[in-house]
Amino acid sequence: MTSWLPTLKTATPEEGYELAVKLARVAVKLTQPDAEVRDRLRPEYAEDADALIAVSQVVATHFATVAAANDYWRGKA
Amino acid sequence: MTSWLPTLKTATPEEGYELAVKLARVAVKLTQPDAEVRDRLRPEYAEDADALIAVSQVVATHFATVAAANDYWRGKA
Amino acid sequence: MTSWLPTLKTATPEEGYELAVKLARVAVKLTQPDAEVRDRLRPEYAEDADALIAVSQVVATHFATVAAANDYWRGKA
Amino acid sequence: MTSWLPTLKTATPEEGYELAVKLARVAVKLTQPDAEVRDRLRPEYAEDADALIAVSQVVATHFATVAAANDYWRGKA
Amino acid sequence: MTSWLPTLKTATPEEGYELAVKLARVAVKLTQPDAEVRDRLRPEYAEDADALIAVSQVVATHFATVAAANDYWRGKA
Amino acid sequence: MTSWLPTLKTATPEEGYELAVKLARVAVKLTQPDAEVRDRLRPEYAEDADALIAVSQVVATHFATVAAANDYWRGKA
Repeated sequence: MTSWLPTLKTATPEEGYELAVKLARVAVKLTQPDAEVRDRLRPEYAEDADALIAVSQVVATHFATVAAANDYWRGKA
Repeated sequence: MTSWLPTLKTATPEEGYELAVKLARVAVKLTQPDAEVRDRLRPEYAEDADALIAVSQVVATHFATVAAANDYWRGKA
Repeated sequence: MTSWLPTLKTATPEEGYELAVKLARVAVKLTQPDAEVRDRLRPEYAEDADALIAVSQVVATHFATVAAANDYWRGKA
Repeated sequence: MTSWLPTLKTATPEEGYELAVKLARVAVKLTQPDAEVRDRLRPEYAEDADALIAVSQVVATHFATVAAANDYWRGKA
Repeated sequence: MTSWLPTLKTATPEEGYELAVKLARVAVKLTQPDAEVRDRLRPEYAEDADALIAVSQVVATHFATVAAANDYWRGKA
Repeated sequence: MTSWLPTLKTATPEEGYELAVKLARVAVKLTQPDAEVRDRLRPEYAEDADALIAVSQVVATHFATVAAANDYWRGKA
């Protein structure tokens, strides 16, 4: 069985950001496991400025964690 | 008596994420101990995009703590 | 005179979580010192999903502090 | 001229918490310098559960900073 | 050309707090560059308890960063 | 192919702040990829005090990460 989160390590900051987006989404899935309900909610919040900003806040919080886990990709670039 | 939180250590990042979800839920239980009331509230917020994003924010905050406690699972993967 | 917060050290993660809950509640008391008003507000937010999630967020923030103060209880378990 | 914030050091965790409450209040004063307006707003939010929880969140964020500044009062208690 | 943010270093905690307030305001300016619109919005949120608390939350987050950047002004006071 | 986020390193705190603003915006783009919808939402939140403060909160969270990644630009200024 493969894990959806085998590691917090990513090759680049950009991939780290994508992982943060994924981490933000999984909590929603775990709280609302019904894909049909989630699909119904999506257009609603994707066209709501407040919800989009709130999603961005969750991503920011996870990105802090992923960045720390990667020592801010200091060896790169 | 067993503890619901014997340790913050988990074997994998995925299990750490699951622990973060649990940590988010326990505060709700402690503030609203009546399981019947919680069951009544659940469908309400599970179909509300704003509430789902807010839950995801709490999970993100706890995940930061659990990840730090596990030194970001650096020895793994 | 005894302090309500003599230390951030706790024996276990579970006790640390309980301390985080307490830390979240004290700020409410300091802002609204009238116990009668607080008692009136309690059922209101304890049956409101958004408020319960917001309380959980405050607890998460304090738990991060308490966990760091205890070096994540690394010597335990 | 004395400073309202000469240091982040406090003798005890409890005093650190009080400093966090103060830090939360000063930003409100700087954004709304008119004491009369603030006095008018106070009863409003002091009887509003959501506002009280939001205040508690700000205090939690400042307490994290003050606690770190005091190395979590590790030498005490 | 002078920078509005040449450094995160401040002489005192109080100046650090003032910098945090400034950091909170600049994001608003960058998102709403029209000074006239901002002037129109100001009385609105400056008399709204929820908005004042939200501003205080942003300041708290920036103050954490500024305080860490100054090693909590440990050499002072 | 160039990355939108090759590094978290910036030459100055001001550039770090600009990167934080960018990091806040990208999550919105990833959640609402339709530029037309985003353009429609923009005036809405850019004239809403609560939304502007919420954006500022996301920027503050990212700025904390960028500042840490740059060791608070301690060698500068």
